[in-house]
Amino acid sequence: MANKHIIRTLMVEIPSVPGSLGKLTTVIGLAGGDIGEVETIQVGPNYTTRNITVQVEHEKQLSELLEAVHQLEGGFRIHTVSDEVLRSHEGGKIQMKSKMPIESLADLRRVYTPGVADVCRVIEEEPEKAGIYTSIGNTVAIVTDGTAILGLGDIGPVAGMPVMEGKSALFDQLAGINGVPILLNTKDPDQIVQTVKSISLGFSGILLEDIASPHCFEVEERLKRELDIPVMHDDQHGTAVVTLSAVISACKSAGVDLRKARVGQIGLGAAGLAICRMMMAYGVKNVIGTDKSQIAMTRLENYGGCSVDSIEKLMECSDIVIATTGIPGLIKKEWVRQGQVILALSNPKPEIEPEEALQAGAVYAADGRSVNNVLGFPGIFRGVLNAGFNEITHSMLVAAAEAIAACTKPGDLVPHPLDSNVHKMVAKAVENVDSLSDKEVKHPKICIQRKVPLKSFA
Amino acid sequence: MANKHIIRTLMVEIPSVPGSLGKLTTVIGLAGGDIGEVETIQVGPNYTTRNITVQVEHEKQLSELLEAVHQLEGGFRIHTVSDEVLRSHEGGKIQMKSKMPIESLADLRRVYTPGVADVCRVIEEEPEKAGIYTSIGNTVAIVTDGTAILGLGDIGPVAGMPVMEGKSALFDQLAGINGVPILLNTKDPDQIVQTVKSISLGFSGILLEDIASPHCFEVEERLKRELDIPVMHDDQHGTAVVTLSAVISACKSAGVDLRKARVGQIGLGAAGLAICRMMMAYGVKNVIGTDKSQIAMTRLENYGGCSVDSIEKLMECSDIVIATTGIPGLIKKEWVRQGQVILALSNPKPEIEPEEALQAGAVYAADGRSVNNVLGFPGIFRGVLNAGFNEITHSMLVAAAEAIAACTKPGDLVPHPLDSNVHKMVAKAVENVDSLSDKEVKHPKICIQRKVPLKSFA
Repeated sequence: MANKHIIRTLMVEIPSVPGSLGKLTTVIGLAGGDIGEVETIQVGPNYTTRNITVQVEHEKQLSELLEAVHQLEGGFRIHTVSDEVLRSHEGGKIQMKSKMPIESLADLRRVYTPGVADVCRVIEEEPEKAGIYTSIGNTVAIVTDGTAILGLGDIGPVAGMPVMEGKSALFDQLAGINGVPILLNTKDPDQIVQTVKSISLGFSGILLEDIASPHCFEVEERLKRELDIPVMHDDQHGTAVVTLSAVISACKSAGVDLRKARVGQIGLGAAGLAICRMMMAYGVKNVIGTDKSQIAMTRLENYGGCSVDSIEKLMECSDIVIATTGIPGLIKKEWVRQGQVILALSNPKPEIEPEEALQAGAVYAADGRSVNNVLGFPGIFRGVLNAGFNEITHSMLVAAAEAIAACTKPGDLVPHPLDSNVHKMVAKAVENVDSLSDKEVKHPKICIQRKVPLKSFA
Repeated sequence: MANKHIIRTLMVEIPSVPGSLGKLTTVIGLAGGDIGEVETIQVGPNYTTRNITVQVEHEKQLSELLEAVHQLEGGFRIHTVSDEVLRSHEGGKIQMKSKMPIESLADLRRVYTPGVADVCRVIEEEPEKAGIYTSIGNTVAIVTDGTAILGLGDIGPVAGMPVMEGKSALFDQLAGINGVPILLNTKDPDQIVQTVKSISLGFSGILLEDIASPHCFEVEERLKRELDIPVMHDDQHGTAVVTLSAVISACKSAGVDLRKARVGQIGLGAAGLAICRMMMAYGVKNVIGTDKSQIAMTRLENYGGCSVDSIEKLMECSDIVIATTGIPGLIKKEWVRQGQVILALSNPKPEIEPEEALQAGAVYAADGRSVNNVLGFPGIFRGVLNAGFNEITHSMLVAAAEAIAACTKPGDLVPHPLDSNVHKMVAKAVENVDSLSDKEVKHPKICIQRKVPLKSFA
């Protein structure tokens, strides 16, 4: 994720001679630029002007790339180099809007005083009606302390705000949910829990986001226990849901029975541990993990998994290998066993390149470029809000993963992340889980402002 | 505010005979109904169908009113009685929206990963750029603990949510500001201050709302001192701004020089005390107050005002009388002095009816029906956000009051609350205050994520 993060749009005048675009794109590719969209702006008799979006790893590479284009002979000319990413962030990406215009005194009397007093009294008398007459039933807090923003680390919540706004924008676009970013001015688990509890009445769900390991575990567990609304740490369970769906699809392609397979997880951070737990919840009997931290391995054992003390040993005894370490090239070719399924999910560079793994004998191999959390969280929250659930259980998460896998085309790892049908199917799958029969529901909770399905996303 | 809060829309079939509408509206008026909009739905040969919006005090009055219409002879028929207030609140009044559609992988790369990482890094390196690339610079938290919701009292923050959503909707419609309701699960001043501080990084302003006296004073003072963003308790200063503007206009009508006058304030709750402070900030030399609570009167003295121990005495020595007690008929006719200006602002029934006060010798008298906070807070926050101020000072509030008064038509008390020009003028007036010359700025604060005027409301 930390790599190839610079996106620029070059507006280039390209001579109208056959092969010119090919020449240009070759030069860009050789300079290390990944080409995205190519848009034709103007077609003239001698020149065609095109916008070409390129992704590069760093500023130096961008300079070299631009220089290489300048050196091209035959009349190529760069008009502008624009940063559309920054431009599209100007003023922020989200806004709080009134659902209706307020144009007359009659409108004002209805939505504000004196009419609003009547609505307040209705809710005072029957608190569950807040689910009908306020936006609470459709609003989720997106909470971060800024300690693990993408792959960038502890850059603070304000620098992480563009990610939170992105989540909020995706909540709106993919699930019709109001996502409200909450930036925490503290990293202390006690204070985080206290603060979220103090503001929880205004929300029907909490999405914890980019909170670092290990305090993310304590924060999530305590909030799940102490609040009567669904709480989910996306970097754990959102990632695990999408990973499980990818593993289900990979096993289908490879003809492997996942539940009977031995699954080995390399890296037991927030995501890795959650993937192990998700595999067990799905019904995988043998889940093995490894990590350089003994504490992380003990944590896995406490959840019922096994640990081994080296990647080599893990590779030896696993039918399916999942890696989420962030370390490119960590898995050596010679460790790969015949017939193994290998998902090396670290971005932007995997622990082993899929081609290499296949050459070494893997029956199926993929990297994590297409495994995007956005496939999970919008539909998961739409589902629990529709159903009025007061927590998110592993049964719901497994149902979500199965729904994503069911929407995946044969041969693909995951579906298109913006396919609205996927999000509807995830929401329905979650909504239809019988929460009372769920073994995890140990303490039935009373939930005053939910149980009223709001704005069904059918 | 607690009265005439029931609004219903009657769809009535009215015989097409001259005088029929008059007959109907007379009956409604005699039954105690205030008529709002009359909308023609269908014109037929024998009957016209109309929607008539009525406000009544309580359910019993509504039943009597409907019965009276039923009794009308000549073919009147009530089709439906609908509660449009409740209906317009279904699903809540606000929503968090993405500013742009996310439809392609290119969009996703721009607003989410990997593009967003670049924006995060820009902000990490230059924190003040959060004002450009996030919505923080245009977002205000609307914070309540639910202890003083309208005139309804301590009904809790969830029952108060419709008011917070109303404020948010008005912020959007009148000032283009994102207002985010925050419902506090605590009434303890320490916890309130701690919670608001813990989530303040995501906001560029705090509007405190419907927090009861006396803890509203401590909460506001501490937050103003401990945060580097503007904080305002609307029930104190928003009300005081609009009241000052009304008093300025009343004095203009009455030919009284406000600054040289003796101003008497009856009721020293959150609003009353703030009105006294606003009068002093405006330059009124003699401000006198009275309240049944000695603590409230001491509080006024600490701010430099005088107190007297009875309303009678206050009336005796005041040129201008303002009352905000919530007690109808509190001011006796015989206490009114010749040439006095009297603003009895309690809703829905004033401390003295304007006609009565005028008969008793007042030179100008008004009640508070038109004095609405919505004239103040949207423009005040638009102004401070545009200017990048890190606090709201009395100079800014006085400038806002003067701007409202300047927009008031001769003879009127206040302008139309939805006149967009008023809000623009208030914003400009606040924006143009020289904050550095303001005596109240004792501790210049460093403000990292402001100073960047965002989305100017010009």
